[in-house]
Amino acid sequence: MPRYKLIIEYDGAPYCGWQIQDNGPSVQGALEDAVKAICGTFVRVNGAGRTDAGVHALAQVAHCDIEKPFAPGRLRDGLNAHLRPHPIGVLSAEIVPDDFEARFSAIKRHYVYRISNRRANLALEIGKVWRLPRRLDTQAMHAAAQRLIGKHDFTTFRDTECQAKSPDKTLDQLDVIRDGDNVSIVTSARSFLHSQVRSMVGSLVWVGEGRWSADDLAAALAARARTACGPVAPPDGLYLVKVDY
Amino acid sequence: MPRYKLIIEYDGAPYCGWQIQDNGPSVQGALEDAVKAICGTFVRVNGAGRTDAGVHALAQVAHCDIEKPFAPGRLRDGLNAHLRPHPIGVLSAEIVPDDFEARFSAIKRHYVYRISNRRANLALEIGKVWRLPRRLDTQAMHAAAQRLIGKHDFTTFRDTECQAKSPDKTLDQLDVIRDGDNVSIVTSARSFLHSQVRSMVGSLVWVGEGRWSADDLAAALAARARTACGPVAPPDGLYLVKVDY
Repeated sequence: MPRYKLIIEYDGAPYCGWQIQDNGPSVQGALEDAVKAICGTFVRVNGAGRTDAGVHALAQVAHCDIEKPFAPGRLRDGLNAHLRPHPIGVLSAEIVPDDFEARFSAIKRHYVYRISNRRANLALEIGKVWRLPRRLDTQAMHAAAQRLIGKHDFTTFRDTECQAKSPDKTLDQLDVIRDGDNVSIVTSARSFLHSQVRSMVGSLVWVGEGRWSADDLAAALAARARTACGPVAPPDGLYLVKVDY
Repeated sequence: MPRYKLIIEYDGAPYCGWQIQDNGPSVQGALEDAVKAICGTFVRVNGAGRTDAGVHALAQVAHCDIEKPFAPGRLRDGLNAHLRPHPIGVLSAEIVPDDFEARFSAIKRHYVYRISNRRANLALEIGKVWRLPRRLDTQAMHAAAQRLIGKHDFTTFRDTECQAKSPDKTLDQLDVIRDGDNVSIVTSARSFLHSQVRSMVGSLVWVGEGRWSADDLAAALAARARTACGPVAPPDGLYLVKVDY
């Protein structure tokens, strides 16, 4: 039975997240419905990362085993047809070895968090960025962010409902880049804790607004306490951009 | 009485266009309502270009005369506050000389038309691009586009309801640029006829799909007949990006 790797773009706004849940439609559920429409039977679609409610993906990765053989391009086209009008696009489908696991084979995940640092209302990017009218000191944010690089206990930046066994994670990259009014926070790691990126972004915004120094951020990390965290950034600006295998 | 120049971004989807009309909400109407909320009286807001229903703007320009003196930054912030939740952002306000006219002082208008040339459903750019699944020959499109540069009678590429006195326009730029699956058609002129950009884009897509040669496009122009035009591209992908003074 061939295993397919899918690369998927979605707008997270209408969904309770990637994963099937009782409290609303999910991206996984929409994909499983589309696979069922094509194959006639239920097939589990396993994602690389469980993006939260409202979080977007430019290239989520998933795998599924489909008994009926499909040319990968036809599977991609069929899934897209059955997914409409969902804001979910299957960018590609390919046959992969049986031991490929979207979640467990992943060696690095890349996210970008987008901030629109301007006073004007959002117009073309409503729901796609976090608008912050106060001018952020992005150089201070970037410098402070480097204090989070490396292996740490990230309990401070972890949702209290996080189910990971350990709060220890190794953060490889956390760059804060300004391009005019657009601020991007680019981060990568083998894996992240629940709400880790949004928790780090919210705390970095406190640095950018001058409420926190780099030492305050480092102290928050060292506290290993959820109560030491700054605000959690809204999901609108968060994108899963790439998964490495 | 000071005259203000406003630079405005908007998502055209919910509007019947820039201009106030009987058949639905307009960007101009929303701005005039916001000005009235601030000033207490009706003030005309004059735009540089009458974008059609559904057409977006990254930097539409408008002017208005407001009796009550405002610091420009406060006017910008007040307009943004009163415009919410419209997808309209006032990027800047500045005081300009009394002879500044958003429409008549403009010496060049710049538009971009965005195509997503991919088989996958749109997800994050629904309503913001025209998706075309067939691979477009963008080199052929660009080469053919150069046949439209210069001063011509653009009757072929003009909406039958266009109210301009003359169909003669001088087209300065019409570039077709591919970046992966994203195709941008970048165009500029002192002014455009009604639906001219979308009419040119639709005809260029016929070139990109191999239905028309560059000679066919040139013949369509030379026909000076609306019936000689290819399809009119949908408004989703069209952006007024800049107005020069």
